[in-house]
Amino acid sequence: MRARDLAIDFPTVSVDTQGLEAARLIARDRLPGLIVCDGNGLPFTVLPGSQVLRFVVPLYVQDDPHLARAYDEQASDEVTRKLGDSTVGDLLKGHPGSRDPDEIPIVDPDATTIEIAAVMARAHSPLVAVVEGGRVLGAVTAALLLDALLPQAEDRA
Amino acid sequence: MRARDLAIDFPTVSVDTQGLEAARLIARDRLPGLIVCDGNGLPFTVLPGSQVLRFVVPLYVQDDPHLARAYDEQASDEVTRKLGDSTVGDLLKGHPGSRDPDEIPIVDPDATTIEIAAVMARAHSPLVAVVEGGRVLGAVTAALLLDALLPQAEDRA
Repeated sequence: MRARDLAIDFPTVSVDTQGLEAARLIARDRLPGLIVCDGNGLPFTVLPGSQVLRFVVPLYVQDDPHLARAYDEQASDEVTRKLGDSTVGDLLKGHPGSRDPDEIPIVDPDATTIEIAAVMARAHSPLVAVVEGGRVLGAVTAALLLDALLPQAEDRA
Repeated sequence: MRARDLAIDFPTVSVDTQGLEAARLIARDRLPGLIVCDGNGLPFTVLPGSQVLRFVVPLYVQDDPHLARAYDEQASDEVTRKLGDSTVGDLLKGHPGSRDPDEIPIVDPDATTIEIAAVMARAHSPLVAVVEGGRVLGAVTAALLLDALLPQAEDRA
Protein backbone atom coordinates (compact mmCIF):
# COMPACT_ATOMS: atom_id res chain seq x y z
CA MET A 1 0.00 0.00 0.00
CA ARG A 2 1.36 3.37 -1.02
CA ALA A 3 0.16 6.90 -0.31
CA ARG A 4 -1.46 7.14 -3.77
CA ASP A 5 -3.69 4.14 -2.95
CA LEU A 6 -4.73 5.51 0.44
CA ALA A 7 -5.34 9.17 -0.41
CA ILE A 8 -8.91 10.41 -0.30
CA ASP A 9 -10.24 13.65 -1.77
CA PHE A 10 -9.64 16.49 0.60
CA PRO A 11 -10.36 20.21 0.43
CA THR A 12 -7.43 22.63 0.45
CA VAL A 13 -7.44 26.27 1.53
CA SER A 14 -4.86 29.03 1.27
CA VAL A 15 -3.57 31.38 3.96
CA ASP A 16 -5.84 34.03 2.41
CA THR A 17 -9.02 31.94 2.64
CA GLN A 18 -11.56 33.52 5.00
CA GLY A 19 -11.54 31.90 8.43
CA LEU A 20 -15.30 31.43 8.34
CA GLU A 21 -15.12 29.53 5.04
CA ALA A 22 -12.42 27.22 6.43
CA ALA A 23 -14.41 26.58 9.61
CA ARG A 24 -17.49 25.74 7.55
CA LEU A 25 -15.56 23.19 5.47
CA ILE A 26 -14.40 21.44 8.64
CA ALA A 27 -17.91 21.53 10.10
CA ARG A 28 -19.76 20.44 6.95
CA ASP A 29 -17.58 17.47 6.09
CA ARG A 30 -16.67 16.57 9.71
CA LEU A 31 -12.98 16.86 8.87
CA PRO A 32 -10.11 16.57 11.37
CA GLY A 33 -8.53 19.60 9.69
CA LEU A 34 -7.70 21.24 6.36
CA ILE A 35 -4.64 21.27 4.10
CA VAL A 36 -3.28 24.81 3.82
CA CYS A 37 -1.43 25.78 0.61
CA ASP A 38 0.92 28.68 -0.03
CA GLY A 39 0.70 31.13 -2.92
CA ASN A 40 2.07 28.51 -5.33
CA GLY A 41 -0.59 25.95 -4.42
CA LEU A 42 1.92 23.87 -2.47
CA PRO A 43 0.72 22.61 0.92
CA PHE A 44 2.80 23.73 3.84
CA THR A 45 0.75 22.89 6.89
CA VAL A 46 -2.47 21.44 8.26
CA LEU A 47 -5.03 23.52 10.15
CA PRO A 48 -6.63 21.24 12.79
CA GLY A 49 -10.19 21.88 13.87
CA SER A 50 -9.07 22.41 17.47
CA GLN A 51 -6.84 25.28 16.28
CA VAL A 52 -9.90 27.07 14.86
CA LEU A 53 -11.53 26.78 18.28
CA ARG A 54 -8.36 28.06 19.95
CA PHE A 55 -8.61 31.13 17.73
CA VAL A 56 -12.24 31.93 18.48
CA VAL A 57 -12.28 31.39 22.23
CA PRO A 58 -10.94 34.38 24.20
CA LEU A 59 -7.79 33.56 26.16
CA TYR A 60 -9.38 34.38 29.53
CA VAL A 61 -12.11 31.86 28.77
CA GLN A 62 -9.53 29.22 27.79
CA ASP A 63 -7.93 29.85 31.17
CA ASP A 64 -11.24 29.40 32.97
CA PRO A 65 -13.84 27.67 30.78
CA HIS A 66 -16.58 28.20 33.38
CA LEU A 67 -16.57 31.90 32.51
CA ALA A 68 -18.09 30.88 29.18
CA ARG A 69 -21.37 29.91 30.80
CA ALA A 70 -22.12 33.57 31.41
CA TYR A 71 -22.13 34.68 27.83
CA ASP A 72 -23.41 31.86 25.67
CA GLU A 73 -26.27 33.82 24.14
CA GLN A 74 -24.15 36.07 21.96
CA ALA A 75 -21.36 33.48 21.50
CA SER A 76 -22.38 32.21 18.10
CA ASP A 77 -22.62 35.72 16.64
CA GLU A 78 -19.26 36.67 18.08
CA VAL A 79 -17.56 33.53 16.74
CA THR A 80 -19.04 34.10 13.30
CA ARG A 81 -17.93 37.72 13.24
CA LYS A 82 -14.42 36.88 14.43
CA LEU A 83 -14.00 34.14 11.79
CA GLY A 84 -15.51 36.39 9.13
CA ASP A 85 -12.92 39.08 9.87
CA SER A 86 -9.97 36.68 9.78
CA THR A 87 -7.98 34.59 7.31
CA VAL A 88 -6.59 31.08 7.62
CA GLY A 89 -3.20 32.78 8.09
CA ASP A 90 -4.56 34.48 11.23
CA LEU A 91 -5.94 31.18 12.52
CA LEU A 92 -2.54 29.53 12.14
CA LYS A 93 -0.72 32.08 14.29
CA GLY A 94 0.42 30.40 17.46
CA HIS A 95 -0.06 26.94 15.96
CA PRO A 96 3.22 25.16 16.68
CA GLY A 97 3.04 22.89 13.60
CA SER A 98 3.07 25.82 11.22
CA ARG A 99 6.62 26.87 12.00
CA ASP A 100 9.13 24.07 11.50
CA PRO A 101 9.75 23.31 7.79
CA ASP A 102 10.85 19.78 8.84
CA GLU A 103 7.38 19.11 10.15
CA ILE A 104 5.36 19.78 7.03
CA PRO A 105 2.81 16.94 6.82
CA ILE A 106 3.42 16.04 3.16
CA VAL A 107 4.33 12.76 1.48
CA ASP A 108 4.87 11.78 -2.13
CA PRO A 109 2.57 9.24 -3.81
CA ASP A 110 5.09 6.40 -3.41
CA ALA A 111 5.42 6.81 0.35
CA THR A 112 4.88 3.55 2.25
CA THR A 113 2.42 3.19 5.14
CA ILE A 114 5.21 3.43 7.73
CA GLU A 115 6.68 6.45 5.99
CA ILE A 116 3.29 8.19 6.12
CA ALA A 117 2.94 7.20 9.78
CA ALA A 118 6.39 8.64 10.54
CA VAL A 119 5.57 11.97 8.88
CA MET A 120 2.22 12.14 10.70
CA ALA A 121 3.80 11.27 14.05
CA ARG A 122 6.57 13.83 13.61
CA ALA A 123 4.20 16.60 12.58
CA HIS A 124 1.65 15.73 15.34
CA SER A 125 -0.90 16.08 12.55
CA PRO A 126 -4.28 14.35 12.19
CA LEU A 127 -3.65 14.03 8.42
CA VAL A 128 -0.97 14.26 5.74
CA ALA A 129 -1.26 15.64 2.21
CA VAL A 130 -0.20 13.48 -0.73
CA VAL A 131 1.55 15.72 -3.26
CA GLU A 132 2.80 14.94 -6.78
CA GLY A 133 4.54 17.53 -8.94
CA GLY A 134 3.23 20.43 -6.90
CA ARG A 135 -0.36 19.19 -6.97
CA VAL A 136 -2.36 17.86 -3.98
CA LEU A 137 -3.72 14.42 -4.88
CA GLY A 138 -5.56 14.05 -1.58
CA ALA A 139 -4.96 13.27 2.07
CA VAL A 140 -4.46 10.32 4.39
CA THR A 141 -5.93 10.51 7.91
CA ALA A 142 -4.58 8.71 10.98
CA ALA A 143 -7.65 6.47 11.09
CA LEU A 144 -7.33 5.49 7.41
CA LEU A 145 -3.68 4.74 7.90
CA LEU A 146 -4.29 2.52 10.93
CA ASP A 147 -6.90 0.70 8.91
CA ALA A 148 -4.32 0.04 6.18
CA LEU A 149 -1.65 -1.06 8.67
CA LEU A 150 -3.72 -3.47 10.74
CA PRO A 151 -4.82 -6.91 9.55
CA GLN A 152 -8.50 -7.02 8.74
CA ALA A 153 -9.75 -10.23 10.22
CA GLU A 154 -8.49 -12.11 13.26
CA ASP A 155 -6.14 -10.91 15.96
CA ARG A 156 -2.66 -12.05 14.97
CA ALA A 157 -0.97 -10.69 18.07
CA MET B 1 -27.18 24.28 22.55
CA ARG B 2 -25.63 22.38 25.42
CA ALA B 3 -23.15 19.51 25.58
CA ARG B 4 -25.96 16.98 26.17
CA ASP B 5 -27.57 17.98 22.84
CA LEU B 6 -24.32 17.76 20.91
CA ALA B 7 -22.85 14.55 22.32
CA ILE B 8 -22.65 11.56 20.02
CA ASP B 9 -22.04 7.94 21.01
CA PHE B 10 -18.37 7.33 21.40
CA PRO B 11 -16.36 4.28 22.42
CA THR B 12 -14.30 4.42 25.61
CA VAL B 13 -11.26 2.37 26.51
CA SER B 14 -9.27 1.96 29.72
CA VAL B 15 -5.53 2.22 30.29
CA ASP B 16 -5.51 -1.60 30.39
CA THR B 17 -7.20 -2.05 26.99
CA GLN B 18 -4.90 -3.75 24.50
CA GLY B 19 -3.27 -1.25 22.14
CA LEU B 20 -4.31 -3.28 19.12
CA GLU B 21 -7.98 -3.18 20.15
CA ALA B 22 -7.83 0.60 20.60
CA ALA B 23 -6.15 1.08 17.22
CA ARG B 24 -8.81 -1.07 15.57
CA LEU B 25 -11.62 1.04 17.08
CA ILE B 26 -10.05 4.21 15.69
CA ALA B 27 -9.53 2.58 12.29
CA ARG B 28 -12.94 0.94 12.02
CA ASP B 29 -15.03 3.97 12.94
CA ARG B 30 -12.63 6.57 11.47
CA LEU B 31 -12.41 8.30 14.84
CA PRO B 32 -10.14 11.24 15.67
CA GLY B 33 -9.29 9.50 18.95
CA LEU B 34 -10.67 7.56 21.90
CA ILE B 35 -11.83 8.52 25.38
CA VAL B 36 -9.62 6.83 27.98
CA CYS B 37 -11.14 6.02 31.39
CA ASP B 38 -9.42 5.23 34.66
CA GLY B 39 -10.17 2.27 36.94
CA ASN B 40 -13.39 3.95 38.15
CA GLY B 41 -14.75 4.43 34.64
CA LEU B 42 -14.06 8.16 34.77
CA PRO B 43 -12.46 9.62 31.65
CA PHE B 44 -9.14 11.31 32.23
CA THR B 45 -7.69 11.82 28.78
CA VAL B 46 -8.12 11.38 25.04
CA LEU B 47 -5.87 9.15 22.95
CA PRO B 48 -5.55 10.77 19.50
CA GLY B 49 -4.98 8.57 16.44
CA SER B 50 -1.68 10.32 15.72
CA GLN B 51 -0.42 9.28 19.16
CA VAL B 52 -1.00 5.61 18.26
CA LEU B 53 1.15 6.15 15.17
CA ARG B 54 3.80 7.89 17.25
CA PHE B 55 3.94 4.77 19.40
CA VAL B 56 4.34 2.27 16.57
CA VAL B 57 6.87 4.12 14.43
CA PRO B 58 10.47 3.68 15.65
CA LEU B 59 12.07 6.95 16.75
CA TYR B 60 14.86 6.77 14.16
CA VAL B 61 12.21 6.49 11.45
CA GLN B 62 10.31 9.48 12.87
CA ASP B 63 13.60 11.38 12.65
CA ASP B 64 14.10 10.40 9.03
CA PRO B 65 10.86 9.10 7.46
CA HIS B 66 12.67 8.11 4.24
CA LEU B 67 14.28 5.24 6.14
CA ALA B 68 10.81 3.70 6.24
CA ARG B 69 10.84 3.00 2.54
CA ALA B 70 13.42 0.26 3.10
CA TYR B 71 11.31 -1.94 5.32
CA ASP B 72 7.71 -1.64 4.31
CA GLU B 73 7.21 -5.35 3.66
CA GLN B 74 7.30 -6.45 7.29
CA ALA B 75 5.91 -3.17 8.65
CA SER B 76 2.31 -4.26 9.08
CA ASP B 77 3.33 -7.39 11.01
CA GLU B 78 5.63 -5.41 13.24
CA VAL B 79 3.00 -2.74 13.98
CA THR B 80 0.43 -5.42 14.80
CA ARG B 81 2.84 -7.25 17.10
CA LYS B 82 3.86 -4.03 18.87
CA LEU B 83 0.25 -2.95 19.44
CA GLY B 84 -0.70 -6.48 20.52
CA ASP B 85 2.00 -6.42 23.20
CA SER B 86 0.99 -3.01 24.56
CA THR B 87 -1.80 -1.35 26.50
CA VAL B 88 -3.47 2.02 26.02
CA GLY B 89 -1.44 3.14 29.05
CA ASP B 90 1.76 2.40 27.10
CA LEU B 91 0.48 4.31 24.09
CA LEU B 92 -0.19 7.37 26.24
CA LYS B 93 3.38 7.59 27.54
CA GLY B 94 4.97 10.71 26.16
CA HIS B 95 1.62 12.20 25.18
CA PRO B 96 1.68 15.71 26.62
CA GLY B 97 -2.09 15.92 27.10
CA SER B 98 -2.15 13.02 29.53
CA ARG B 99 -0.27 14.80 32.30
CA ASP B 100 -1.89 18.04 33.38
CA PRO B 101 -5.11 17.47 35.40
CA ASP B 102 -6.25 20.95 34.30
CA GLU B 103 -6.28 19.78 30.73
CA ILE B 104 -8.64 16.85 31.01
CA PRO B 105 -11.02 17.12 28.04
CA ILE B 106 -14.25 16.66 29.99
CA VAL B 107 -17.39 18.79 30.23
CA ASP B 108 -20.68 18.36 32.06
CA PRO B 109 -23.96 18.00 30.13
CA ASP B 110 -24.92 21.66 30.71
CA ALA B 111 -21.71 23.08 29.24
CA THR B 112 -22.35 25.71 26.57
CA THR B 113 -20.81 25.59 23.10
CA ILE B 114 -18.17 28.18 24.03
CA GLU B 115 -17.37 26.35 27.23
CA ILE B 116 -16.84 23.11 25.27
CA ALA B 117 -14.69 25.04 22.79
CA ALA B 118 -12.58 26.46 25.62
CA VAL B 119 -11.97 23.02 27.14
CA MET B 120 -11.10 21.57 23.73
CA ALA B 121 -8.77 24.47 22.91
CA ARG B 122 -7.03 24.25 26.24
CA ALA B 123 -6.55 20.50 26.06
CA HIS B 124 -5.44 20.62 22.38
CA SER B 125 -7.83 17.73 21.96
CA PRO B 126 -9.80 16.68 18.87
CA LEU B 127 -12.77 15.78 21.11
CA VAL B 128 -14.19 16.20 24.63
CA ALA B 129 -16.10 13.69 26.71
CA VAL B 130 -19.49 14.64 28.14
CA VAL B 131 -19.73 13.18 31.64
CA GLU B 132 -22.68 13.07 34.05
CA GLY B 133 -22.44 11.52 37.50
CA GLY B 134 -19.33 9.53 36.62
CA ARG B 135 -20.81 8.16 33.40
CA VAL B 136 -19.70 9.03 29.87
CA LEU B 137 -22.75 10.19 27.89
CA GLY B 138 -20.79 10.62 24.67
CA ALA B 139 -18.35 12.98 22.99
CA VAL B 140 -18.29 16.21 21.04
CA THR B 141 -15.74 16.58 18.22
CA ALA B 142 -14.25 19.86 17.00
CA ALA B 143 -16.10 19.55 13.68
CA LEU B 144 -19.46 18.95 15.39
CA LEU B 145 -18.87 21.90 17.66
CA LEU B 146 -18.02 24.25 14.78
CA ASP B 147 -21.17 23.07 13.07
CA ALA B 148 -23.20 24.05 16.16
CA LEU B 149 -21.46 27.42 16.52
CA LEU B 150 -21.74 28.61 12.92
CA PRO B 151 -24.95 29.83 11.33
CA GLN B 152 -26.32 27.34 8.84
CA ALA B 153 -27.37 29.39 5.89
CA GLU B 154 -25.94 32.65 4.58
CA ASP B 155 -22.69 34.34 5.55
CA ARG B 156 -23.50 36.86 8.26
CA ALA B 157 -19.95 38.20 8.52
